[in-house]
Amino acid sequence: MASPRAADLADALASMRRQQPLTHCLTNIVAAPWTANVLLAAGAAPAMVDNAHEAAGFTQVASAVLVNLGTPYDDTSAAMRVAASAAAEHGTPWVLDPVAVGGLPWRTELAAELLDARPAVVRGNASEVLALGGGGGGRGVDSTDDPAAAMDAARALAGEHGCVVAVSGPVDHLTDGDTIVRVANGHEWLTRVTGVGCALGALMAAYAGSVDDRLTAAVAATAHLTVAADVAAETTRGPGSFAVSLLDELAILMPRTLAERVRLS
Amino acid sequence: MASPRAADLADALASMRRQQPLTHCLTNIVAAPWTANVLLAAGAAPAMVDNAHEAAGFTQVASAVLVNLGTPYDDTSAAMRVAASAAAEHGTPWVLDPVAVGGLPWRTELAAELLDARPAVVRGNASEVLALGGGGGGRGVDSTDDPAAAMDAARALAGEHGCVVAVSGPVDHLTDGDTIVRVANGHEWLTRVTGVGCALGALMAAYAGSVDDRLTAAVAATAHLTVAADVAAETTRGPGSFAVSLLDELAILMPRTLAERVRLS
Amino acid sequence: MASPRAADLADALASMRRQQPLTHCLTNIVAAPWTANVLLAAGAAPAMVDNAHEAAGFTQVASAVLVNLGTPYDDTSAAMRVAASAAAEHGTPWVLDPVAVGGLPWRTELAAELLDARPAVVRGNASEVLALGGGGGGRGVDSTDDPAAAMDAARALAGEHGCVVAVSGPVDHLTDGDTIVRVANGHEWLTRVTGVGCALGALMAAYAGSVDDRLTAAVAATAHLTVAADVAAETTRGPGSFAVSLLDELAILMPRTLAERVRLS
Repeated sequence: MASPRAADLADALASMRRQQPLTHCLTNIVAAPWTANVLLAAGAAPAMVDNAHEAAGFTQVASAVLVNLGTPYDDTSAAMRVAASAAAEHGTPWVLDPVAVGGLPWRTELAAELLDARPAVVRGNASEVLALGGGGGGRGVDSTDDPAAAMDAARALAGEHGCVVAVSGPVDHLTDGDTIVRVANGHEWLTRVTGVGCALGALMAAYAGSVDDRLTAAVAATAHLTVAADVAAETTRGPGSFAVSLLDELAILMPRTLAERVRLS
Repeated sequence: MASPRAADLADALASMRRQQPLTHCLTNIVAAPWTANVLLAAGAAPAMVDNAHEAAGFTQVASAVLVNLGTPYDDTSAAMRVAASAAAEHGTPWVLDPVAVGGLPWRTELAAELLDARPAVVRGNASEVLALGGGGGGRGVDSTDDPAAAMDAARALAGEHGCVVAVSGPVDHLTDGDTIVRVANGHEWLTRVTGVGCALGALMAAYAGSVDDRLTAAVAATAHLTVAADVAAETTRGPGSFAVSLLDELAILMPRTLAERVRLS
Repeated sequence: MASPRAADLADALASMRRQQPLTHCLTNIVAAPWTANVLLAAGAAPAMVDNAHEAAGFTQVASAVLVNLGTPYDDTSAAMRVAASAAAEHGTPWVLDPVAVGGLPWRTELAAELLDARPAVVRGNASEVLALGGGGGGRGVDSTDDPAAAMDAARALAGEHGCVVAVSGPVDHLTDGDTIVRVANGHEWLTRVTGVGCALGALMAAYAGSVDDRLTAAVAATAHLTVAADVAAETTRGPGSFAVSLLDELAILMPRTLAERVRLS
């Protein structure tokens, strides 16, 4: 498919809000509350079901699934495995957010295993995407690499696993293995609020649950979050008030404003 | 007992703040921080002790206990079982919040088992209360049913287990099996902030730990939260700023204002 | 070493921000998001790695480690043990926050065992410090004792374990076993926001990872948080808006303002 245009993103936003996709999140103890609030503000319906007794079954009810490796434990990683497999089996689109892979061997193995369950989207920073592709690894959740430097690895990963790979950074880079889309919105304060990247992965799942084209879904989620951040930063004075305003703007943002302000290339 | 009047709710608020009830919460990873902040703002003293080594003993120190099934795991569900039993044994009032029961079989069994430990209050949405009473079930934390439609099930449940059943929704309905009390305050944004229902269950526990009559306690908690929401919505522009203002108003709300603004029937 | 002066604290703030210390947190489900946001706002880089597969290895990459006993489980307490031992072995400074020890026997034993791994700083309220020293214990996270009353126990503890002991309260008291430093900043609303004490422990870890002298590190973290709270309280109306503004002020606070406003004795 061709690269999504601004009008496609506006349509995706309207469609996502209309459908209120039930977004099944298996995520970490740091980002879980913020992720749920971002999804609710944006217009989706979050549900965190992350025990192995229920996680597989719930993927059949959900519109989309997020698997985020921020704080995996033995029990929740077992839930992640069965949820990813069940999502693949039932055709429920799911997003893999391989937080801090590379430097941490246990979760790096887990991420490699999860990749076999065919995620619709993989979202990470440049270090994480390089590590998934067999390269290095950062010092935790921070990226020590630039998104542009990870795009060869991202395209290879996308091609090999048939997924979209989204590389977050000052300019977000997304690829389906062929096309590369860049979104140049966002603000430095996004790096001073915990769980913004994690919430972006969840928002990509929400969009993937309501829009057919995966690249459009991932780009629309990125544009929704980063344009809302641009607006929020205009009237706030630090990371605390910015985070509050970001939730307001995620809820208020009109599709037309999204199309006008998004900086695609 | 007769249905509580507005003046009784004002007295309950003053009494709860004076006593600062130690409210022992076994809750979920999404709502835990917000629940603690709601309790602190309202005037109670939260303590989250949710491992099986300590949860039973702590019910003897606590004024009240909350058991919330949002994200149960093997280890925390074991803690919930021993905490509920210990609370029943020691006469500590406890609240059951059966999040998402019905659609999810594992927690539905857990909720049924916990009901045997005689909660003072069961709080849920209409779908959850219908499911507990043997009916259907929603699509997660959302309710697909109206509170009014769940009141036959709620009264039966209250009668069978000797508890108050509180059904949250646009108009909250509460019953002790006999009387039905409706609270018509609140704002649509309450559904766009994660964990509001969970925090309401915790606030009911705090009131149940400081007011003798359970129906009055549950109604007072509902009125405290929803009247504060009415005030907060007047000066905010979206779910982010609304949630912040809600905490402020929970702390500021005067008993007199509560009595004036609550819409009871 | 002599007691740190206001100018030393200003230097410590500038140094911590310049280094952005990677602060490895093993903490509780209530305070984890807030702790991460406080660290990010203040200028540090949080990373929560709290499973036993990865926690030990990550202490070699991190600048400092926090071990907080707010909601310990079997699996996370195992991770705490290996992280504390590995930090001691590799010389990575680490902070122990013994939340609610005394009243809860299981975690009291865990805290005693962790003390053997030589924390750089122990931070608690007066009840917790008295309990660690073999005295009583509070009713959970609240302190029922005054910091001044715990200073004999604090000095003994500091002397025995070669660490700094920080006792939080209306006036914070910190000691290396010899010198006692008091910080008289802060606001009553700090007790109405969940996880402030937990976040202070994490901030002490961040400072201990960027400043050589441990007493200076712990005092600087205390001053940074409580002076920011003084400023935040000036323009806010309740615990919700105060918490938001506190994050802003943690980010904005200039070293010069810190030195001017800190009330040391």
